[in-house]
Amino acid sequence: MSKISPLAPKRFPKLAAIEGVSLASGACGIKAGMRSDLMVAVLAPGSKVAGVFTKSLTAGPTVRWCRDALSGGAIRAIVVNSGNANVFTGKAGAGDVSATAAMTAKVLDVKPSDIMVSATGVIGERLPITKITRALPGLIGDVAASSRAGIWKKAAEAISTTDTYPKGASARAKIGGKSVNISGIAKGSGMIAPNMATMLAYVFTDAKLPAPVLQSLLRDSAERSFNAITVDSDTSTSDTVLLVATGVGAAHKPITKASDPALRDFKRKLDDVMLDLAHQIIRDGEGATKFITIDVTGAASNRAAKVIAMSIANSPLVKTAFAAGDANWGRIVMAVGKAGEKINADKLAIRVGGIKITENGAARKGYKEAPVTRHVKGKNIDVSVNVGAKPVKQSGTARVWTCDLTHGYISINADYRS
Amino acid sequence: MSKISPLAPKRFPKLAAIEGVSLASGACGIKAGMRSDLMVAVLAPGSKVAGVFTKSLTAGPTVRWCRDALSGGAIRAIVVNSGNANVFTGKAGAGDVSATAAMTAKVLDVKPSDIMVSATGVIGERLPITKITRALPGLIGDVAASSRAGIWKKAAEAISTTDTYPKGASARAKIGGKSVNISGIAKGSGMIAPNMATMLAYVFTDAKLPAPVLQSLLRDSAERSFNAITVDSDTSTSDTVLLVATGVGAAHKPITKASDPALRDFKRKLDDVMLDLAHQIIRDGEGATKFITIDVTGAASNRAAKVIAMSIANSPLVKTAFAAGDANWGRIVMAVGKAGEKINADKLAIRVGGIKITENGAARKGYKEAPVTRHVKGKNIDVSVNVGAKPVKQSGTARVWTCDLTHGYISINADYRS
Repeated sequence: MSKISPLAPKRFPKLAAIEGVSLASGACGIKAGMRSDLMVAVLAPGSKVAGVFTKSLTAGPTVRWCRDALSGGAIRAIVVNSGNANVFTGKAGAGDVSATAAMTAKVLDVKPSDIMVSATGVIGERLPITKITRALPGLIGDVAASSRAGIWKKAAEAISTTDTYPKGASARAKIGGKSVNISGIAKGSGMIAPNMATMLAYVFTDAKLPAPVLQSLLRDSAERSFNAITVDSDTSTSDTVLLVATGVGAAHKPITKASDPALRDFKRKLDDVMLDLAHQIIRDGEGATKFITIDVTGAASNRAAKVIAMSIANSPLVKTAFAAGDANWGRIVMAVGKAGEKINADKLAIRVGGIKITENGAARKGYKEAPVTRHVKGKNIDVSVNVGAKPVKQSGTARVWTCDLTHGYISINADYRS
Repeated sequence: MSKISPLAPKRFPKLAAIEGVSLASGACGIKAGMRSDLMVAVLAPGSKVAGVFTKSLTAGPTVRWCRDALSGGAIRAIVVNSGNANVFTGKAGAGDVSATAAMTAKVLDVKPSDIMVSATGVIGERLPITKITRALPGLIGDVAASSRAGIWKKAAEAISTTDTYPKGASARAKIGGKSVNISGIAKGSGMIAPNMATMLAYVFTDAKLPAPVLQSLLRDSAERSFNAITVDSDTSTSDTVLLVATGVGAAHKPITKASDPALRDFKRKLDDVMLDLAHQIIRDGEGATKFITIDVTGAASNRAAKVIAMSIANSPLVKTAFAAGDANWGRIVMAVGKAGEKINADKLAIRVGGIKITENGAARKGYKEAPVTRHVKGKNIDVSVNVGAKPVKQSGTARVWTCDLTHGYISINADYRS
């Protein structure tokens, strides 16, 4: 890993063990220098799974495999390699995914369709599949309970590419008075845009939840987390978020519907874990030195608000201004204007760091730049824009996150073959 | 101006004089250091004008003024200031445009609605209008025929902001056997995306063409030139292209329709001038070190082809790879996939520098990277992608131009307040 992001958390958090989840990771030789590049999660019989994936039309065969495998709702293992995305590798690439699933299924004596496979790294190069299939039996033999010290961190490291730190998050939730745990790991740093970013995330719970319920919970939560972040507007061919429920934790009341009120706390805690992981990806955005939160209100709809928020979040001119600690709010006006969604320029109200900058289609009378400059020189920047298309209370709103655009992004992407 | 782009033409071209066009430029004090920041073009009575403008919803009052003034089709002067875009400046900003037009009209003894006004530079700051209105009478008194040596170059310099060289182009065309001239100047460097870029361009001809004919010619030509370039995907609030016909050159057969076959050569030469200016803008893209041409074929429609081409042209990962001279064609696969338009990934054929890289949804058997690397290490990069949605002959196609994304872009935009 290269120099750690200045926005990185101080340390990898302590993740709660998830009953029914065993992990192993190691180096099979895809990455140079025998860095860790293969991760296996083995899951208790009866585990259920939900998934959301990239919307790219050049999605790789791992994504196609997972979409197919998801239909049964059952899962017994996840295999992830980093260093090679196995994307745009034709029939051979699809065969490599089958071979990975088949080898894992054989060792575990389960069905290949119960194995989920992911890959991340360079696009367009054939996967060195024998390195993976040779390593798998030993790695699966090595799996240990997720309570083992350091095991989550190692798993997070094994799925990383340009990440500068491993990403994990955890929470405890109540379902009908009983405690359950949620723990997840993620990777992602560049090629990060909604739908969903070059990112992989695996979130596990010991709660007992049917696959359709999991799918509904995951889809909702992803919309507010992984689908609300952008580093560089580029969309990966491999994005995958899986939510796994082993069902072997503390027994709780049976759940059959996502709308069950007993899930209220679980939903909130799942959101916390998903959002924490998504924010960690932004904090590790390639070259990032600032964490930027963008709120849009006053839009014609939630969808319009998100388009405008993403137009600001993806604007190279907004992101370079913030990189420099420059309170150049005119570039926010530009980004709002180019989004193509309905606005009322005369009512456009821009706040940065809570300071109101504009009113009546111009800078406020007596607007002073100094406090805004102080805010944008900090590590956390808050932008809020009321676009004036509708009264706020009836209006569409969105909140998205991004990072600044710095020399670091150029250095990483002009040097690293990703 | 900062260090001249490595892609700059060797010298400012010789522009043909246009009968009926007089020019003057100078420093009125908007830019620091008394750099040239005000340009006036005075036009012969009877001159006609057409215009295309930014589609930004936060367009500035100069754009709104020009759109209104255009309705009459007549024009007697163009006034352009650089250094301050007069955008998001509320009612005061709109008043400043009126004041500029009124002062110019008064000195020339014409109607204010015959004056076109443009501005480019920082957004959101009140224009120092008295500097402009004080300077205008003298400047208008100083205008000289466009045949004067160096006068076009000075005009091009006066409308520049982050440009590293002045931009001009010229051609001679025949209308019904009679020679007419076309000469134009442009500015633009960053905040360049279709519809239309932070760019201003003024193209003049001494042909005699009615305003509706001019408008049709300009719209067509802009679609293939200024609306087919991108530096950074950001859309300006001030973009303006005006096409002026003074009608005082060599008498040619009367033209009443844009479809008149007598205009064939004129259309071709107008395209040449517009495309030359558009390419000069890309060659001066902020931080640019490579000029990149992207062709898309095999798309479901021309519109779809342009969306895909622009997705490639705007991808930070594609642009940083090219900046590094890295033949990382996987990022082109990614950019095609994220465009959201219909493709057939198994038929996706990517060529770089004319070298076929992919077939059957994977890298070609025996694909060798070295010749592609040699090509992308050069200053001119050609990318061609057949997306396989339709047989090429019936398919939608598009050609767009962009530049690479380098440390220079970050330096310019993190330092310059634009």
